[in-house]
Amino acid sequence: MPIRVTIWNEFRHEKTNPKAAEIYPKGIHEAIAAHLRTDARLHISTATLDEPEHGLSEDVVRQTDVMLWWGHLAHDELSNLIVERVYQRVMAGMGLVVLHSGHFSRVFRKLMGTSCDLKWRESGDREILWVTHPGHPILEGIDDYFVLPVEEMYGEFFDIPEPDETILISSFTGGEVFRSGCTFTRGAARIFYFRPGHETYPTYYDPNVLRVIQNAVHWVAPRREVKPLEFGNRKSGWLDHSPE
Amino acid sequence: MPIRVTIWNEFRHEKTNPKAAEIYPKGIHEAIAAHLRTDARLHISTATLDEPEHGLSEDVVRQTDVMLWWGHLAHDELSNLIVERVYQRVMAGMGLVVLHSGHFSRVFRKLMGTSCDLKWRESGDREILWVTHPGHPILEGIDDYFVLPVEEMYGEFFDIPEPDETILISSFTGGEVFRSGCTFTRGAARIFYFRPGHETYPTYYDPNVLRVIQNAVHWVAPRREVKPLEFGNRKSGWLDHSPE
Amino acid sequence: MPIRVTIWNEFRHEKTNPKAAEIYPKGIHEAIAAHLRTDARLHISTATLDEPEHGLSEDVVRQTDVMLWWGHLAHDELSNLIVERVYQRVMAGMGLVVLHSGHFSRVFRKLMGTSCDLKWRESGDREILWVTHPGHPILEGIDDYFVLPVEEMYGEFFDIPEPDETILISSFTGGEVFRSGCTFTRGAARIFYFRPGHETYPTYYDPNVLRVIQNAVHWVAPRREVKPLEFGNRKSGWLDHSPE
Amino acid sequence: MPIRVTIWNEFRHEKTNPKAAEIYPKGIHEAIAAHLRTDARLHISTATLDEPEHGLSEDVVRQTDVMLWWGHLAHDELSNLIVERVYQRVMAGMGLVVLHSGHFSRVFRKLMGTSCDLKWRESGDREILWVTHPGHPILEGIDDYFVLPVEEMYGEFFDIPEPDETILISSFTGGEVFRSGCTFTRGAARIFYFRPGHETYPTYYDPNVLRVIQNAVHWVAPRREVKPLEFGNRKSGWLDHSPE
Repeated sequence: MPIRVTIWNEFRHEKTNPKAAEIYPKGIHEAIAAHLRTDARLHISTATLDEPEHGLSEDVVRQTDVMLWWGHLAHDELSNLIVERVYQRVMAGMGLVVLHSGHFSRVFRKLMGTSCDLKWRESGDREILWVTHPGHPILEGIDDYFVLPVEEMYGEFFDIPEPDETILISSFTGGEVFRSGCTFTRGAARIFYFRPGHETYPTYYDPNVLRVIQNAVHWVAPRREVKPLEFGNRKSGWLDHSPE
Repeated sequence: MPIRVTIWNEFRHEKTNPKAAEIYPKGIHEAIAAHLRTDARLHISTATLDEPEHGLSEDVVRQTDVMLWWGHLAHDELSNLIVERVYQRVMAGMGLVVLHSGHFSRVFRKLMGTSCDLKWRESGDREILWVTHPGHPILEGIDDYFVLPVEEMYGEFFDIPEPDETILISSFTGGEVFRSGCTFTRGAARIFYFRPGHETYPTYYDPNVLRVIQNAVHWVAPRREVKPLEFGNRKSGWLDHSPE
Repeated sequence: MPIRVTIWNEFRHEKTNPKAAEIYPKGIHEAIAAHLRTDARLHISTATLDEPEHGLSEDVVRQTDVMLWWGHLAHDELSNLIVERVYQRVMAGMGLVVLHSGHFSRVFRKLMGTSCDLKWRESGDREILWVTHPGHPILEGIDDYFVLPVEEMYGEFFDIPEPDETILISSFTGGEVFRSGCTFTRGAARIFYFRPGHETYPTYYDPNVLRVIQNAVHWVAPRREVKPLEFGNRKSGWLDHSPE
Repeated sequence: MPIRVTIWNEFRHEKTNPKAAEIYPKGIHEAIAAHLRTDARLHISTATLDEPEHGLSEDVVRQTDVMLWWGHLAHDELSNLIVERVYQRVMAGMGLVVLHSGHFSRVFRKLMGTSCDLKWRESGDREILWVTHPGHPILEGIDDYFVLPVEEMYGEFFDIPEPDETILISSFTGGEVFRSGCTFTRGAARIFYFRPGHETYPTYYDPNVLRVIQNAVHWVAPRREVKPLEFGNRKSGWLDHSPE
């Protein structure tokens, strides 16, 4: 059974910014989807902000195993209902891959419990991403570093809780550093934050970036048998009546 | 300069439940305060739900270095304004010690990003708290375990993010276990969750429990020089003009 | 290509202790092997202390992707050469699953950097293992707890570094607790410590125990493309000549 | 009672390399000691490789609360006896601050369980150290970054276990990054690794570097009441006879 992936994209820059439109004529989501569709173990759908229910109806969300999230301008335009729907689905075990400016998305901030703020600059820095966790499944096929010739700068302090694992750290021409690949666990769900991906650079055509995203989809995907977690009152005597 | 501590207590059980009233005639907050007042390095205040602004006016919150939080019945009665005020103060570096049923408080859940749910039972279990992080400052003066003859049971799975440090793990007569002492960092703030403290047991007179709470107050207290964190746009050339 | 698994067992108790011999007539390694052989994605071999080179020749170790380790009486009988050989193979990315009294094995202690000491008692305690990391791949198919009716007790403090993940915590009849399922990363290698498995109890026939071991073998198995890590001197100018 | 600090330095470069001798005429240990002696809560001693027992007699080690360690050329000249003595003292709770090339010292490698290898280059890179854990006691008084105009480069992958906390990350002119401030816990002991400090640069006169070292000494210092840890056999019935 394939992993059911929904790529969510705000899809606004690509309609209004000529440079973004030129690089991503069908939207960032379609650039990522084109690559992921080459993986027979994945079933790929997309959803965007301006569709009804932002493309995230109850059926769509319930039938998603892994969601990717790219947003920037319009985090506040998401309805509370949809934010809560996606959040609850993560709590139930759905994997989540948050991309670039998605750090400020309401779902990610709610999951982190912090501001998720950072330093930034758009001036054509070169980014070098260094592997700090060799052998991690998300880094399969990645060398000990890779370079993006031009990207937006994100700099520390990145206001997130200490990640479970920090697997990539970036340096920028300007001298800044950033924890660019971070894993988190929340309930039965796994979350991966991946930094690169400014809308005016062809980052989502870079083979290393696409490889990391593809690996991450497999890594955050839930195992088949995640059951609803049991909470609440627990009578004495359960041990005597337990099936084991 | 002493550490300014505000002990927040819901203070409802003690007014309506005869057993709680008998054990804590002045409220749980006063039992804890009585002990902490013996520490000359601390300046102790209290605040309760039914005071104006729940006892947490802007002035009170701004002048608090460490807040303790006990709540149970009435988490939803807190105004959004006060929850946000306390949360923002934590983001600015205030230490937070969350006690027992405070696991379900809105501030703690917002900081954790998870449901914070758990299993529970009120049937007079004996609780044994085991040290899993010897030498931790919060455990100064604590032996390798201590016993509470009767307490409410909390059982795993406790739906929190993986703690920075798990320093106490409890077993209960019924066979359950629980991560009873957990540290977290959020921004510049430190948070300690400490499990024991049901309102119908004299837990807050236990010398080990009081010692842990007192140590925790010192451990979460911010250092003097936490400045507002710097985020946002960062022009090129900062390095040339930096004072270093 | 199947994962090449070598189950290493000291295999002394089963020859000298009638109770152990009765339960594990062919040795603990064969009880575990019988189960793992039902998994077509695994290729299973065994090795024991009293074979030449303890069954761990250079060829055997080089051709092992995942090693399981059970030892107790004779940790000090292992030659330095073999300890170093196994350790270096872990450093190169081999997965390692350490079972029960293997906590005191020289390889595990060398990897941890601590004494790995603990409290223990053989008096027929019942052990309950609680899941503290639902959704973890090693716990696929495991409910929120499982019970072993009789086992040796291991109690905290367990002198290991803070694990990357604590996924199972045990309670015992006597009131002790223990971090029974712990993951660690060292270099490109993954390590899983799994507590149960005293030689005089039929623990390695328990379906939950076997399931955890099987899951763990898959989880610690290295990805195909772990290359030798690059260290050492790095001339200026690498960036200009890098292939990216 | 002051914290008893022993600064251990290999003290070879400063005798043979004219540049090191010029910058540190009395040795690196004396440059650090000069600063730490201004802190009345500390009692400072020094010890060097070529003294009898490398300056680390049983009495000296037993009476040390915090040890600093700088070594580079001669890690292998340390006697096994002294390495073991220092290691056992750490296991008993002594704090350890490992400086720069001390990453390859035998004591640090034994504590980490890994190779502790890294990439390096001596070509006058500028190092910028970024704070990734604001509010950490070791960073008290440190801004959100600081710059060392010229230093040796150390680059990732740094082969250490995932630190408890990564509080400083460096970038270098050449584009490399490094986890430059890392905390670890081993048993009751705390360990801090701090990257800067090449012998041919005046790093140990930099106010930020000295501030971090001074803060770290206080942070790793053991609490007064760390008792020997209890391990081993534990009879049934302990609970009935326990004093609580």
